[in-house]
Amino acid sequence: MKRILLCVSYDGTGYCGWQYQTGHVTIEGRLNEAIGDLTGKETAVIGASRTDSGVHALCNMAVFDTESSIPGDRFSFALNTKLPDDIRVVWSKEVAPDFHPRHVAVEKTYEYHIYNAPFMPPFMRNYRFHEGRPLDVERMNKAAAYLVGEHDFKAFCSAETQALSTVRTITDIKVTREKEELTISVSGNGFLYNMVRIIAGTLMWVGLGVRTPEDVRDMLESLDRTKAGPTAPACGLLLANFKFLLDI
Amino acid sequence: MKRILLCVSYDGTGYCGWQYQTGHVTIEGRLNEAIGDLTGKETAVIGASRTDSGVHALCNMAVFDTESSIPGDRFSFALNTKLPDDIRVVWSKEVAPDFHPRHVAVEKTYEYHIYNAPFMPPFMRNYRFHEGRPLDVERMNKAAAYLVGEHDFKAFCSAETQALSTVRTITDIKVTREKEELTISVSGNGFLYNMVRIIAGTLMWVGLGVRTPEDVRDMLESLDRTKAGPTAPACGLLLANFKFLLDI
Repeated sequence: MKRILLCVSYDGTGYCGWQYQTGHVTIEGRLNEAIGDLTGKETAVIGASRTDSGVHALCNMAVFDTESSIPGDRFSFALNTKLPDDIRVVWSKEVAPDFHPRHVAVEKTYEYHIYNAPFMPPFMRNYRFHEGRPLDVERMNKAAAYLVGEHDFKAFCSAETQALSTVRTITDIKVTREKEELTISVSGNGFLYNMVRIIAGTLMWVGLGVRTPEDVRDMLESLDRTKAGPTAPACGLLLANFKFLLDI
Repeated sequence: MKRILLCVSYDGTGYCGWQYQTGHVTIEGRLNEAIGDLTGKETAVIGASRTDSGVHALCNMAVFDTESSIPGDRFSFALNTKLPDDIRVVWSKEVAPDFHPRHVAVEKTYEYHIYNAPFMPPFMRNYRFHEGRPLDVERMNKAAAYLVGEHDFKAFCSAETQALSTVRTITDIKVTREKEELTISVSGNGFLYNMVRIIAGTLMWVGLGVRTPEDVRDMLESLDRTKAGPTAPACGLLLANFKFLLDI
């Protein structure tokens, strides 16, 4: 028996998110099917990040155990022949049998992508949120600075969270613009349910002038979800980078 | 009565091409519906390029006649509220009542997009052709040079063509690479049925070493469709630019 780690990229548009759900098409479900197809054994992957319905990933992580003779680094090629073309295994490797992708130190970077121009190109409709009114990047960066560090993010978390603690550490947030393309990059070791999308919705409020940068500090201190901005739509969100902080 | 010119961008993935067909979802059909919805009058647009099923456009052109009081340049905004988000009117303007987008001198540029790397990112699957084996751009450019100018392109045209003459003029072909992204740009005043996709399929043969650049000259001279390369898949093709050569 060996444990295989997969780096998985997907277009989340057609999926009810990562997590397996009976009667719904999910990334995890499709991966389990592809591995079962390939190895002839029913298999359940353990995923690192349970991305929401419609959210995309350049690199999410998952492990599974197998007795297959396929070498660890060949699973990517083999699984891609079994997967739909909106899910790709970017690379695969064998890891220690006790390696668990949710129980090791990681840094994740989510990007929230906004197309900030009156006209939205049809090719981007599934990968960008469209905001036609001009967003002020400088104001957004001022507001974002209040969120960096260890804080109780209760105000920036869906009321449906099941997390025991709502304290998290954001190591970096940057808002950048390249022509019409505005990107909010948020890095940290873990995020609450809808946290990055609520941060994006709140920073867009500030960028539009609906709130001041200082209001964001007050929202954070309020610990009250109703004070922060709206949850920005899933299509703009991308799990852009996933880094294990120790050698694996 | 006034005539309105539309510049239309679309993701062709979900469409049976431009041209109206009963019982099929087409770009032209959707435009007619949106204009009918907006103006309350049944309307039929006249399109400039009848792109195939699955082919994309940054800018295709169409005209229609209307008695609506909406100013010419406001139709883009108004129609975008009625159109699905994979079709966008980029701009609109009033033109002379006898302006016909197929009866004026134009230069069109089609781009054929290839993702040339072993792994195909899921986000590009509808907009790139995936070729995992390395393509030699220099060889492809040498081959492309034989196609520039006025020629009988019978060998590079679907046998199903209804064109009276298969003579066309290609003003420019360039093959360029940026990392994994390979683009074949073909400009001319008009193209035969499947011509750009057959050129792309043929240049990929040369890029892979299946044929020499000089073979392409022989294919052209043969006037025989069976001598040229395969028709490359629609998803890689984009009508990238459409320029009227006289002021409109």
